[in-house]
Amino acid sequence: MLVDYQLLRIPGPTPVPPSVERAMLSPMIGHRNQETKDLLRRLKPGLQKVFGTNEDVMLIAGSGTAGLEIAVCNTVNPGDEVLVIVTGSFGERFAKICEAYHLQVHRIRFPNGKALQPKAIKTFLETNPTIKAVFATYCETSTGVLNPIQDLAIQIKQASDALLIVDGVSCVGAVDTKMDDWGIDILVTGSQKAFMLPPGLTLVAVSQKAWSHIYHNKQPRYYFDLRKYQQSLYHNTTPFTPPLSLLFGLEESVRLIEKEGLFTVYKRHKIMKEMIRAAFTALDLDLLTNDLDASPTVTAVKAIDFSAEELRKIAKKEFNLVLAGGQNELKGEIFRVGHMGYCSPADMLLTISLIEIALLRLGKQVELGAGVRAAQLIWIQEGLV
Amino acid sequence: MLVDYQLLRIPGPTPVPPSVERAMLSPMIGHRNQETKDLLRRLKPGLQKVFGTNEDVMLIAGSGTAGLEIAVCNTVNPGDEVLVIVTGSFGERFAKICEAYHLQVHRIRFPNGKALQPKAIKTFLETNPTIKAVFATYCETSTGVLNPIQDLAIQIKQASDALLIVDGVSCVGAVDTKMDDWGIDILVTGSQKAFMLPPGLTLVAVSQKAWSHIYHNKQPRYYFDLRKYQQSLYHNTTPFTPPLSLLFGLEESVRLIEKEGLFTVYKRHKIMKEMIRAAFTALDLDLLTNDLDASPTVTAVKAIDFSAEELRKIAKKEFNLVLAGGQNELKGEIFRVGHMGYCSPADMLLTISLIEIALLRLGKQVELGAGVRAAQLIWIQEGLV
Repeated sequence: MLVDYQLLRIPGPTPVPPSVERAMLSPMIGHRNQETKDLLRRLKPGLQKVFGTNEDVMLIAGSGTAGLEIAVCNTVNPGDEVLVIVTGSFGERFAKICEAYHLQVHRIRFPNGKALQPKAIKTFLETNPTIKAVFATYCETSTGVLNPIQDLAIQIKQASDALLIVDGVSCVGAVDTKMDDWGIDILVTGSQKAFMLPPGLTLVAVSQKAWSHIYHNKQPRYYFDLRKYQQSLYHNTTPFTPPLSLLFGLEESVRLIEKEGLFTVYKRHKIMKEMIRAAFTALDLDLLTNDLDASPTVTAVKAIDFSAEELRKIAKKEFNLVLAGGQNELKGEIFRVGHMGYCSPADMLLTISLIEIALLRLGKQVELGAGVRAAQLIWIQEGLV
Repeated sequence: MLVDYQLLRIPGPTPVPPSVERAMLSPMIGHRNQETKDLLRRLKPGLQKVFGTNEDVMLIAGSGTAGLEIAVCNTVNPGDEVLVIVTGSFGERFAKICEAYHLQVHRIRFPNGKALQPKAIKTFLETNPTIKAVFATYCETSTGVLNPIQDLAIQIKQASDALLIVDGVSCVGAVDTKMDDWGIDILVTGSQKAFMLPPGLTLVAVSQKAWSHIYHNKQPRYYFDLRKYQQSLYHNTTPFTPPLSLLFGLEESVRLIEKEGLFTVYKRHKIMKEMIRAAFTALDLDLLTNDLDASPTVTAVKAIDFSAEELRKIAKKEFNLVLAGGQNELKGEIFRVGHMGYCSPADMLLTISLIEIALLRLGKQVELGAGVRAAQLIWIQEGLV
């Protein structure tokens, strides 16, 4: 079998484009020198566009979870009541972080594969006026759900003065995001998803309303103290040594996004989602989410009459195709296909064609090509972006 | 002037070797897949040798400061009394982190350019038996001092049961480090120094004695919770997405260190230090530290009858040679030359020869070649490693 060949179709880390790889190899520079200041200054407008904000996007060495914790430990104080909307593993992670900080955590859970219902959140907030912050997941990576953050923000504002803090890790840069217009107070993402970079960088933007909370917050923090990042970024620098190679790559990945056009990037992800969904439907496989709740970045497929883990093993062993499994209680129940970042509709056709063979190998009755054909039709109808 | 050319002679980030750059470009893989587990398993023995420990070295996305904070927030509780030994800016940073966590911080300061005196620490601990932890800096990057950590550990153990927590960021991998034998309880370093990688990864090892503190510690933490990293690493994984490209590079940089041999790596750094010191002495420039206290990784030179900042500007503008300045109260008082990681005695000759010209340009009386000659003699005497 061809070696050094891998088709990475998981919801992050995602493949890195060649030009981003080359950019990452720029020689090291002094992080306090003018070159780094110039780079940080140049990065600002592009990141603001992707986030849909006029606020600065802060860049911090750490995983996406570090970004989530930053959003918690800067805003709410021990004993504060918060609402965490749980639509899967990453909503639950937000709740666990809040608990680690001794917050009084209210969870509203929605079933796996279902999006949150903004009206239910509004109702809860109306009867719980002491809630200081609402934590929500934009794309719930574990189930492939894209939550209706814009509607959620509207409903929250009608009922409460709580901050809206959003985990956008597995979708910002791939789906429409208007932080300022919608009224998101803190938006977090990571480098290894739609930004097409290796992991190791978290990106965080903060509304003026949230800053006033942050400046009065009493939680112990130093490396995660957003005030330091804000003050440094004002002078185009960082409080601590930034992950320079990722910043070099980020400039190129934002350039690629701008060259394609944000609108086209979003449309490409939407088409990939529709292709994958049409394909699995044509192959008689059940999807975990309905069309309305489905994320453009990751699709979860139910494994009802076959073993999800066995399918993943065959895909890896026979085709070097890497699929994701289910997490926690969904382990063995689903497999997941990532279609995010450096990934095209053509990649979907390849992925589907390989999964068809893998399903056949599993002993499942499959009409070879049926999934591919359904996906091709979608792509042709939607326009060849 | 030749473009895309830079001589980075600051104490981190340090230049990245070509083979490490190539390794960093390995395509992304699933962080929960077998490849990542195999990589984490393969990394263990090499890192243990560099740290001088039988404990696992944990790998966390973050800057060196993140590693320092991890060492604080996992070990001591609010109100605990700690001793921070301050020999410069990075000792002071340890103290600031401790204060952010509401510890009762005792500082013992030593003058800039002087190493800590272990006996003084012992005396302090004898009269302050409530101290829970002692924080020390192995190489104080801001002054170019290498503190006597082995002696410090001996003195502490004679007087106290306090943990010894060491910032080894700008020297581990370049100077002899025997964490277990010396009795260091937590040792922290970063990727962008002697490990010859870009910044973004912190490395932390913990003694059995420190683990018992960590498991009982009450500070709020989630991403920084070392228990999660320990338990994951036992299964060759990480609790959160690791900075994969840095891990790819780390395997190669550790291979390079092993190929050269740790002893030879240490000797190379010692020779570079001696070359730089002999050169500046021959040029009638004063060094900030004496021979005994000087670090093999960075040298601070006093700017008595010339402007340090002007020298750095000329070096950058005329030769693309990047030198470091002084920090805080040392700004303008000194300049610093980094000689750490991917850096050879030959690089020292080049660096010195360029600084000679830059000093001349500043209007200083300099015998061109005198510094180079002194450094050449050292290198010849010490053996051409």
